[in-house]
Order: sequence, then C-alpha cells, then structure tokens
Amino acid sequence: MKIQAPYLLFLGDANDELSIKMAKGVADWRPEQCVGEYRLNNCTVSTGQPAMDIKTAKAAGAKTFVLSFANSGGTIDPAWIPFIIEALENDMHVVSGLHQKLTDIEQVSELAERRGLDLIDIRHPSQSFNTGKGYKRSGKRLITVGTDCSVGKMYTSLCIEKAMKAQGFDVDFRASGQCGILIAGDGVAIDCVVADFIAGASETLSPDNTSEHWDIVEGQGALSHPAFAGVSLGLLHGAQPDAIVICHAINRSTMRGLDNRPLPSIAQTIELNLAAARVTNPNAKVAAIAVNTSSVDEREALKICNAIAIEHNLPCVDPVRHGVDAIIGNLT
Amino acid sequence: MKIQAPYLLFLGDANDELSIKMAKGVADWRPEQCVGEYRLNNCTVSTGQPAMDIKTAKAAGAKTFVLSFANSGGTIDPAWIPFIIEALENDMHVVSGLHQKLTDIEQVSELAERRGLDLIDIRHPSQSFNTGKGYKRSGKRLITVGTDCSVGKMYTSLCIEKAMKAQGFDVDFRASGQCGILIAGDGVAIDCVVADFIAGASETLSPDNTSEHWDIVEGQGALSHPAFAGVSLGLLHGAQPDAIVICHAINRSTMRGLDNRPLPSIAQTIELNLAAARVTNPNAKVAAIAVNTSSVDEREALKICNAIAIEHNLPCVDPVRHGVDAIIGNLT
Repeated sequence: MKIQAPYLLFLGDANDELSIKMAKGVADWRPEQCVGEYRLNNCTVSTGQPAMDIKTAKAAGAKTFVLSFANSGGTIDPAWIPFIIEALENDMHVVSGLHQKLTDIEQVSELAERRGLDLIDIRHPSQSFNTGKGYKRSGKRLITVGTDCSVGKMYTSLCIEKAMKAQGFDVDFRASGQCGILIAGDGVAIDCVVADFIAGASETLSPDNTSEHWDIVEGQGALSHPAFAGVSLGLLHGAQPDAIVICHAINRSTMRGLDNRPLPSIAQTIELNLAAARVTNPNAKVAAIAVNTSSVDEREALKICNAIAIEHNLPCVDPVRHGVDAIIGNLT
Repeated sequence: MKIQAPYLLFLGDANDELSIKMAKGVADWRPEQCVGEYRLNNCTVSTGQPAMDIKTAKAAGAKTFVLSFANSGGTIDPAWIPFIIEALENDMHVVSGLHQKLTDIEQVSELAERRGLDLIDIRHPSQSFNTGKGYKRSGKRLITVGTDCSVGKMYTSLCIEKAMKAQGFDVDFRASGQCGILIAGDGVAIDCVVADFIAGASETLSPDNTSEHWDIVEGQGALSHPAFAGVSLGLLHGAQPDAIVICHAINRSTMRGLDNRPLPSIAQTIELNLAAARVTNPNAKVAAIAVNTSSVDEREALKICNAIAIEHNLPCVDPVRHGVDAIIGNLT
C-alpha cells in the first residue's frame, strides 16, 4: 500500500500544533512530497506549506489528499466529507490517520471504488500478517528504542537515515507509526496490528535485503511502559536489530501519561532492550544514545551528553543539535 | 459477555484429538457446564460427553451451542450453517472459536438478532479496551508463564484454582485464551486484541477485588518466543502478579513451531519474567515451578522435579502427578 506522492495536506479545523504533528512531520522531512496544505476557515495552525484548495492542488500535481491531523476520539466530522468527495472527484487517492475509517463511509467508499481510487486508513492495516518466525534475514538493521514514549525515536531514525544517505550508505527508513508512514509512503502502524501478529508484522516491515543494506526501523513505545511494552517487544523481536539506539528525553519525571511512574534509567533501558533483542539476534549491540535536550541551553546540552557518553561508554548526541555522525561512526 | 451454560458441544466433522482441544477442555474441567456433544456422521473423535442432537440438548436444558473445534484456516464450512440455524431456532445462543465470524454470516446474524440471541466469536473480542494504566489494583494475582508456548499454563492455572477453592480460598480463574474462556464462561482472547490495548485488556481481565481474593491468570505465549512475546509481556504487565508460576515441559528441544530455536533455561525464564513483572508490581515473586513430565515414568518425574526444586530453591511439581498443594503453600 504505497501512498502516492505528492500530497495535499488537509488540516481541517485544527487549532493546536500537536494535532497537526503528522502533517508537520511530512512537511519537515519530505517537503518534496507535498504540494501544499488545505486549511478550513477556523483552522489556526499551519505546516508552512502553501495554502491551496483541491482544484489548485490537483493542477499542481497532487495525487493524494491526506487527512493529516488528529482530533479527540479520532472521528471524521461530517463537515469534512464534502472535501473528501471533492478530492475523489479530482482523482486523488485519500489517506487518513484518524480512528474512524474512510472505508466505513458509504458515500466515500462507493465513489472511490467507482473511480478506482485508494482509500487508506493508516490506523487500520489491511495487510494480513503471519506470526513471527524469528529466522535470520539478510541485510543490517538498526532500531530506535526509548526510555519512554515520545522521546524522539522517529526523529532520530529519520536523522540517521538522512545522514547515512549523505554518506553513501544504502539505507531505508522503516515506519512503524502513522506519522512515519506518511513520511515514508508506506510502513505498518504496529500498534494497530492484532496482538498475535506484532512480531510477524515487524518481520514484514524490514524484509531480507542485500548484505550491506541498512534498515532504520522506527521504534514504538518503551519496554518499561506498562501500557505499550508488548508492542515495543514484538517490534524489537521482529526487527532482529544489529544496532540499537537508545532515545531519551531529559527533564521528564514520570512516564508519559502515567503520573505515578518514574522513568527507568538509561542503564536499565540498555539492559532490558539488549536482553530482548538477543532473543532474535545474539549479536545485537547498543550503538549510541540520542538525547532530546531541547529544555536546556547548548552548553548544558553538551555537558549532559558528555556525561552520558562517559557513563555508558557510548556515543551520545542530541540529533537536532549535534547531528548523528557519531552514531553512524559506531555502527560497524 | 458471559457465555451461558450449559453448552451443547458441536464437534462438526473433527477427526483428530487436537482439533477438539477446546471441547475437551470444557468437558474435562466443567462437565457440569455441558449437556452433551453433537458429532456429524464423519466425526471420529469424542469428548466422552453423551451424544445428542439439538432438540434433545434443548430439552436437556442447553442454553448455548458451541462450535468447539479447530480446523485449518478457521473457516465456517457452509455445511455447518443449517446446524447453527437449528440451534438458533431452538433458542440457543451460539459461540464459536473459529477465525471466521458468525456475525459475518448474514443469515445467521439476522436470525440471531430477530430472536434476541447472542452470537459470540471468541477470537474477535467485541469489548473495547483502554490502554494500560499500571495503577496498583487491590486483591492478589497469580499468573502462569512458560519456558515456551503449550507447556501447560492453562492446565496448571485450573489445577491451582481448583485446589485453592478446595482449601477455602476466594479465587477465580481468569481466562486469556479461547479454551479457557469456554471453561470460565468469560475472559479475553488476549492474542486477538489490537496491540495497543494488550496491557489494558489484561488489566480489565483481573479487576480490583477484595484484599484476600486471588485471581489465577492464565498466561499466554512465552517471553522468549520470537512470535508471541509481545502478547506475553502485555498480559504480564496488566496482570501485575504477586506470584508467578513457571511452567515447563521436558524433552522438548526447540521452541514450539520454530525448529531452529533452543528453549530458554528455567533460570532465564525466571529472570526475564521477574524483571518484566516488577515493572508493574515491585513485589512480584516466583512462587513455584510446574513441569509437564508426561513423557517419562513416575520415578523419573519425581527425580526431575526434585532436581529442579533444589536448583532453584522453589517448590516444583507436575500438577497432574503431584497436585499443586506445594505451589499453594508457597503463595503467602
């Protein structure tokens, strides 16, 4: 289910930055995959892409209309349906990251079928998967894992892919979440897969490849997170990573969404992930630590990264501030 | 979704013992919940329950008609539909453990709706779950975990429930798989839940209870199994067990379904499960080891259990041969 670029990013009535994280991700990382954004009158946020209606976007070459915002409950407001219809009438495919399915709206699914257009509900993988097998696949794999959820795993993965490409590596970013899927054009929303197939879906996500090829697998959740560890573990097992990058955010006192739960230490996170990864790849190693230091100044950031590097005897960078060359340098 | 007993166990055309594991489970553990079994002409296996057609079963008080066999692909043979219809016409609810959904068969779902009867597809939980929260719940919990899949976790759980009941404990078996659900009358098929909600579903399975009450949670999969570890971990986190019972089968050289993968040791299994359980219950302890010794004689079985007991300084029994009093004795 390759999503066809370029996209018109539909922002609906969004009015906070966080709700358009998906649109901003693709506008930041793959601006060449966007022709513009389409905002309704009461939308107060923007990705920075040029504002454009559906007809103009079509004339500019847009192939896919993307509902690229989140809202409470994940429902599709009936007020948006005319825009979805208009996109289909202009021969665009439609993609949605919302919970309610496009394919469940009769009017929309009938029109798409009649015109031979795709409706892709990213949160509802239509692919069927096998259970995991654990057999060694060829090629090399790196996965980003976290001390917590939302610590920069996708961002770090994309930085690593970009820098490795610039250095001439044969490399692909493998998306496991909605935002990443829109950026990559494909992938698997791993937390939406039926539990029995998590590892199997993860195996499908980074298939056999040439021996020097690297897959950079976007991690999900965290092994110490009481809600999402199952997803993290199945994804990790299926990825059978050669290299693990630990992602961490400073100045966070409890785990995301759980006010009673302290963060695990980086050392605990290394130990947990390494033990789990070795179930499917006995040679797995931790290659580096990536830290989101956005809450402190440059000087403090460097001090923190150096201290972590020394404590764990591993390269440690803030990918935004320091780039990821130190991570790549430790891959081989 | 409490399944209403007593059941008529429909065995279809089953012709191997393994395919009626679900029917046999309930016939063995809850014979009082069965009125009989209904076998088609070419069915060659039996649960030992009296043979009975639908009308006779209805007259004997049957409330639910259960498709209690497995077949390759999990589809519902059109040849069985007349029997499902007949059961509905006799005012029985219908339960299925197959993959294909009863509710997707128009004729069946219309009739059930018209007559106000339930169609329960055990492999497709209709309940919606929250993500896990990890908050401490009241009451006590024991979970069975394995060195591998299919090592006797359900059997051990049911033995423990039965023996604790006999000793006067306030105790419930909490089913996490199809067979267990049919035995308990309810539960959650945890491997059929969407990945994001594994731990949340597990939290729902063993809710707050009185302080002296024990839930015996049926484990699934194994933390070292490359296919199913995500399910095992989410279930374990959600169960927040006070006590863990390690289940093991001797004379198995590789993990179930994976001819290239050696079994983890009991020591590794203890370590992995204890580390994971302590994420949601810092006081989790391993209470005992249960071993399936069916492949050796009595004398050898006792020797093996004693050696394991000494090595790990824990009670070790084969629940079938030795009962589970030694396990219960180590719970407090």
